[in-house]
Amino acid sequence: MPRSPTVDGQSPGDSRRRSLGALLRRVHLGGPVSRAGLAEWLGVNRSTVLSLTTELVAAGLVREDSAELTGRAGRPSLMVRPAADRVYVIAFDIAVDRLVAARVGLGGAIQDRREARRARAGVDLDTVVRVLADLGRQLHATAASGAACVGIGASYCGMIRPGDGMVRFGPDMGWVDQAFGAELARRLDLGLPVLVGNEAHLGAVAEHRRGVGVGVDNLVYLHGDVGVGGGIIVGGELLGGDGGYGSEVGHMLVNPYDGRPCGCGSRGCLEAEVGERALLDAAGRPGDRIGRDAVREVVDAADRGDPAAREALRTVGDWLGIGVANVINLFNPGMVIFGGMLREVYRGSAAHVRERIAVNVLPVSRTRARLRVSALGDDATLVGAAELGFTRLLADPLGTPVG
Amino acid sequence: MPRSPTVDGQSPGDSRRRSLGALLRRVHLGGPVSRAGLAEWLGVNRSTVLSLTTELVAAGLVREDSAELTGRAGRPSLMVRPAADRVYVIAFDIAVDRLVAARVGLGGAIQDRREARRARAGVDLDTVVRVLADLGRQLHATAASGAACVGIGASYCGMIRPGDGMVRFGPDMGWVDQAFGAELARRLDLGLPVLVGNEAHLGAVAEHRRGVGVGVDNLVYLHGDVGVGGGIIVGGELLGGDGGYGSEVGHMLVNPYDGRPCGCGSRGCLEAEVGERALLDAAGRPGDRIGRDAVREVVDAADRGDPAAREALRTVGDWLGIGVANVINLFNPGMVIFGGMLREVYRGSAAHVRERIAVNVLPVSRTRARLRVSALGDDATLVGAAELGFTRLLADPLGTPVG
Repeated sequence: MPRSPTVDGQSPGDSRRRSLGALLRRVHLGGPVSRAGLAEWLGVNRSTVLSLTTELVAAGLVREDSAELTGRAGRPSLMVRPAADRVYVIAFDIAVDRLVAARVGLGGAIQDRREARRARAGVDLDTVVRVLADLGRQLHATAASGAACVGIGASYCGMIRPGDGMVRFGPDMGWVDQAFGAELARRLDLGLPVLVGNEAHLGAVAEHRRGVGVGVDNLVYLHGDVGVGGGIIVGGELLGGDGGYGSEVGHMLVNPYDGRPCGCGSRGCLEAEVGERALLDAAGRPGDRIGRDAVREVVDAADRGDPAAREALRTVGDWLGIGVANVINLFNPGMVIFGGMLREVYRGSAAHVRERIAVNVLPVSRTRARLRVSALGDDATLVGAAELGFTRLLADPLGTPVG
Repeated sequence: MPRSPTVDGQSPGDSRRRSLGALLRRVHLGGPVSRAGLAEWLGVNRSTVLSLTTELVAAGLVREDSAELTGRAGRPSLMVRPAADRVYVIAFDIAVDRLVAARVGLGGAIQDRREARRARAGVDLDTVVRVLADLGRQLHATAASGAACVGIGASYCGMIRPGDGMVRFGPDMGWVDQAFGAELARRLDLGLPVLVGNEAHLGAVAEHRRGVGVGVDNLVYLHGDVGVGGGIIVGGELLGGDGGYGSEVGHMLVNPYDGRPCGCGSRGCLEAEVGERALLDAAGRPGDRIGRDAVREVVDAADRGDPAAREALRTVGDWLGIGVANVINLFNPGMVIFGGMLREVYRGSAAHVRERIAVNVLPVSRTRARLRVSALGDDATLVGAAELGFTRLLADPLGTPVG
């Protein structure tokens, strides 16, 4: 039986809420815009836009002022802007070597941020939540008076159950079924849930909304650190799959014969062959130096002609190319984006990646896929967490208490 | 810049057209249903349903009659049924060893069909189009008087450019950039375009709408014959990607070391390792016997304990398992469906496929994915072609001339 097309049964209230959300989303993602521009973009008349913006102004979500402020000549037209100083979210990023918190205003600007170092492994839920909650409360306390926190989002390097932010599997810290979202919400005590997303999923959303992937509705984002994750946008939407655990590019089996052991318990997964440890081992650098800097040193050494570093990047680049070729054949994307430490790896191995694509991708798909590095860099996952925090406000602008 | 949510700018005419399409689609896919059932399903009141069905009855697309005909007791309620005898499409299937044409009524029943054998390779466009056009015209000529052909769909085993049915790459017959859709439409001369789809894409749509995947909105359909194709449904929609060439599971590189040569020019692709030739070679049967029957013989021999056949299915099943594990990690589907000759291969190698999934799929995704064989069997691609033929009617029921 086909599913009901709910759009046909929507109430006038649903339609109004959707229009308000669409308008606020346009201002949040696209920045200041005239009422005329909003009318054209929404496909409605100007009196409808006036009524919508009036409601959003009254709710304290947008402001209207003259375009003369922008220095443009001609007849002044009212510009609609996000009320960035009145409405914010708190975003958290549980990165591989640090814990980050930021206050992000409506419109997407990072207003303030705090960081704490963290150990690489074996950090327990309680410690992580305690540190993050402290950082988050500091950011909340230093917000402008009258400003309102409308949501909380967090990026975590593991498989997250949608809805309640349960970490089902976080190999990096050895977490299995840890109630991360609920615990962080409890400790923050701001009367708001903490929405948690997988870091590569959120990086993909961030690059699609605010990075190099703006306007590209079919894209693959690959995020590397210790492991490798993927976030795949299909028709403008994140591919979650049946349970929200889709886009797991890192555990694609690429080396079925003598693959390196993987954190998932198997061998030869993409993340085992192209992750940080694979590169450092291949370059003959199995010592204490780890992390982004150690990866950068290998790429820099290869640039200077170091044979071991060059060979390491050839090997890792070939495996990365196999993974990229496979996702291009499967998704026919307009863009593949390398994020996290894969920015460095791709910088050092682009020729090998392209060689694999030339051999293994069918010509009609090959020509469409541009290869790019993340535009948001180390902030991609944090920006994605902030966007997650804004979800409820953008879905129902007037249903969210502000100020 | 985010895209405009066109739903907010829709005209009353758009909304009416969408409601009529949704209702007709419900009757076409779900079969006879009462007006009350339609009202509940669409989320509208009964007077709206009355007005919609009245229009569809007047257009000759549905009929209303008493439920007493079904033999049920109680107060009779009007049942809305598809006008299967008045409205049909012509569907074509360019299969690996035959050319098939069918007349398919609204509601999905195959009313009549014609087949012609075809050579395995080297068949030119002109020959294929001539045979298909003959079969199609026979089916058109034998339709009930007063019945109307509302669309034409065709399934082809290659990469098809959406919109004009150009075969970009058809390795099976050695076609590159052949104007198949346009030529077939010209020869049929029915005043209708021929919509062409990739066979695995159409098989996926068919299984999702009318087969084992009904109600499963995230599924992967794998279709095997000489080659292996994929059709992937994400959130209820076929994954086409940026250019319509997505879901190419067959050219996923699974064997990077000593892979078998593939029709695409590369080596070690999934289709090279699990296609018909791979199985027959592995079973030591490189002779003249090819096709579905030859594959079935290997599976039957393995059932009887033949060691070479068992070993062949172990090898091929392991490669198939790698491909399936990778798509489960990527798509987190609720179901993986084996179609074409992969039904036989899966029947003979299910244990090996499951073994790979147990090793290579992350536990949270593993538990969700049911493995099934196609319910529509050899007709899956033909049924998908018929659904493609109904596209225009279902999008705009009153905009399509009937009778």
